[in-house]
Amino acid sequence: MIGFELKHKDNSARAGRLHTAHGAVDTPCFMPVATNAGVKTLSPEELDDIGIQAVISNAFVLYLKPGVEVVKKAGGLHRFMNFDRTIFTDSGGFQMLKEDFLDAVSRKGIVFKSPYDDSRHIFTPEKCMDVQEMLGSDVAMVLDDCPPYGSGERRVVESVKRTADWALRCKEAHTSDKQMLFGIIQGGVYKRLREKNAQDITGLDFDGYGIGGLSIGEPRAVMFEMLGFSLSFIPEDRPRYFMGLGSPAELLESISMGVDIFDSAFPTRNARHNAVYTREGRYNITKGRFKDDFGKLEEGCNCYACRNFTRSYISHLMRVYETFGMRLVTIHNLHFITRLLKNAREAIKNNEFEEFKGFIEGSHEKI
Amino acid sequence: MIGFELKHKDNSARAGRLHTAHGAVDTPCFMPVATNAGVKTLSPEELDDIGIQAVISNAFVLYLKPGVEVVKKAGGLHRFMNFDRTIFTDSGGFQMLKEDFLDAVSRKGIVFKSPYDDSRHIFTPEKCMDVQEMLGSDVAMVLDDCPPYGSGERRVVESVKRTADWALRCKEAHTSDKQMLFGIIQGGVYKRLREKNAQDITGLDFDGYGIGGLSIGEPRAVMFEMLGFSLSFIPEDRPRYFMGLGSPAELLESISMGVDIFDSAFPTRNARHNAVYTREGRYNITKGRFKDDFGKLEEGCNCYACRNFTRSYISHLMRVYETFGMRLVTIHNLHFITRLLKNAREAIKNNEFEEFKGFIEGSHEKI
Repeated sequence: MIGFELKHKDNSARAGRLHTAHGAVDTPCFMPVATNAGVKTLSPEELDDIGIQAVISNAFVLYLKPGVEVVKKAGGLHRFMNFDRTIFTDSGGFQMLKEDFLDAVSRKGIVFKSPYDDSRHIFTPEKCMDVQEMLGSDVAMVLDDCPPYGSGERRVVESVKRTADWALRCKEAHTSDKQMLFGIIQGGVYKRLREKNAQDITGLDFDGYGIGGLSIGEPRAVMFEMLGFSLSFIPEDRPRYFMGLGSPAELLESISMGVDIFDSAFPTRNARHNAVYTREGRYNITKGRFKDDFGKLEEGCNCYACRNFTRSYISHLMRVYETFGMRLVTIHNLHFITRLLKNAREAIKNNEFEEFKGFIEGSHEKI
Repeated sequence: MIGFELKHKDNSARAGRLHTAHGAVDTPCFMPVATNAGVKTLSPEELDDIGIQAVISNAFVLYLKPGVEVVKKAGGLHRFMNFDRTIFTDSGGFQMLKEDFLDAVSRKGIVFKSPYDDSRHIFTPEKCMDVQEMLGSDVAMVLDDCPPYGSGERRVVESVKRTADWALRCKEAHTSDKQMLFGIIQGGVYKRLREKNAQDITGLDFDGYGIGGLSIGEPRAVMFEMLGFSLSFIPEDRPRYFMGLGSPAELLESISMGVDIFDSAFPTRNARHNAVYTREGRYNITKGRFKDDFGKLEEGCNCYACRNFTRSYISHLMRVYETFGMRLVTIHNLHFITRLLKNAREAIKNNEFEEFKGFIEGSHEKI
């Protein structure tokens, strides 16, 4: 059965399980991004080995390349990328609005130019649903209008109106009963607008809810204030997905507020730029002191990279731009985050999440 | 016991086994290059899975980065890169002379500038032996003087004199009894000089012999003529290593002439530039027709890439520069070459190598 099962609450923190057409995802969970239908540098077996239960791809990006018809002909995204577990797809509204290829956004949808051949396309809510159903992801996201941080109230008023309008059109266009559909709550940093949008969106009874328009440049305190405020309108029995977060410390804080699902390009992108995650904080593996450090990336870690290779070797690979080095650090960082969230789930089940969070924060000065 | 065992001859083609301090290498064999102490994009487990029994690294490159002291402190190159099988090291003379950092070559050795910090270094034959012993490779190569193709006879006269002189100094400086030492025969495209150098070098009684100074731009007919001529001076009980070859067709031709060992950056470098090796020739996986081709990279192949992914998916990965795509094509190409050489060994043992070679050449129009 497809749906969300809330298993345990520890104050506001929640442990649950998302059941999708491709198995269970224990929450709170972190999804690495597989924007181009693959988590950069990794194989499906490596994702499995790390314990990744879900990844998130991007409908807009796949629409451009290789084209949604190709993925459909392959038998859907799971078969195309040979990944048997849960796949979310983001609509790509965020990318379309953020990137250079935006042509216009109107009531009708988002018009953009392909960066590959300058051809013009329009993503309407209906098209967005159609594309995601053709991709065959387990969880589709509605098309939303996410204005950049710093937008004036007038622009955000327009955004929440459009986001609510598009959410309804997505809901009506969506037909698959194997694919869940999540709404997205916008509203910028304006409480009044967040409240309005949260009520409009939750009123449409989606399978889950994304918190959008945060972690895009606003001060951290504002982010958490808006997050908490947005969460307060979401029914308890629906999963809450904070889109595009974040650092280990931010994940823990958000979990304590009741978030179930996360995604971010950071642990993998940072890995490719030499940043290693550890319980004691992040460090740059190409620093001179690691040249002849024959310890693991992180003491006590048993990921593939730590079991088999030294800091010295990985530092060398990164200094000479060998992609195998990027792969090793990516494995380690995802293993780190996956373990952190696994420990968080256990702490919630034992009603000791705040203790756990305090302990982690105390020992992780820089995370 | 360290040494070479000639097991079977089929006309001039030879099947044998090289016993090194890290196990057996069945010959004829092909070594992928691990210039930076790693075969680009691959893990040691993947090399194992493909059936790679030996790789070749580069003393000069490792001397520059990470530095030979680092590798020595790691416990040697095998432990540094976590590869438990046979490792050859080339001296790097070829690189030093070819690349921009050459400062001067003299009787004493090769003076070069580090491309990293412009510091000046001299590689003498003695230093070259010292570095390779510190790296702890299973087979070290002497320092040789390999002039570029097109060098006049006077320059090649100097090269063979220097190569013979340096070979003697290497032989005298080399102390490890766990590490084999191979001489290298130069002589450009001048039979008289090849003969002289082959006699001088084989007179020093090395564990094996590299054929150097070929496959660097000369016409193919000249290459094979010089190869055959050089091989004729090498004692039958010593392994013959044709350095820096080449295409599948060239490998087979050389095997028929009595070569035992090969290395080349081509199958791996070509893989990263979209070229897929198959029995029917090479093709570019990013060509439009593969966009929705859901077949394997090569029908009938059972490598990891062919078992798990389609041409369509790999084509997509390569078009968007995902390194996982490069990894898949690298695995396939090395699997292709490894299988070709395995089949060649079997054909030799069955006294049907010429038939096998003819069959392959007939069915591989473009290899």
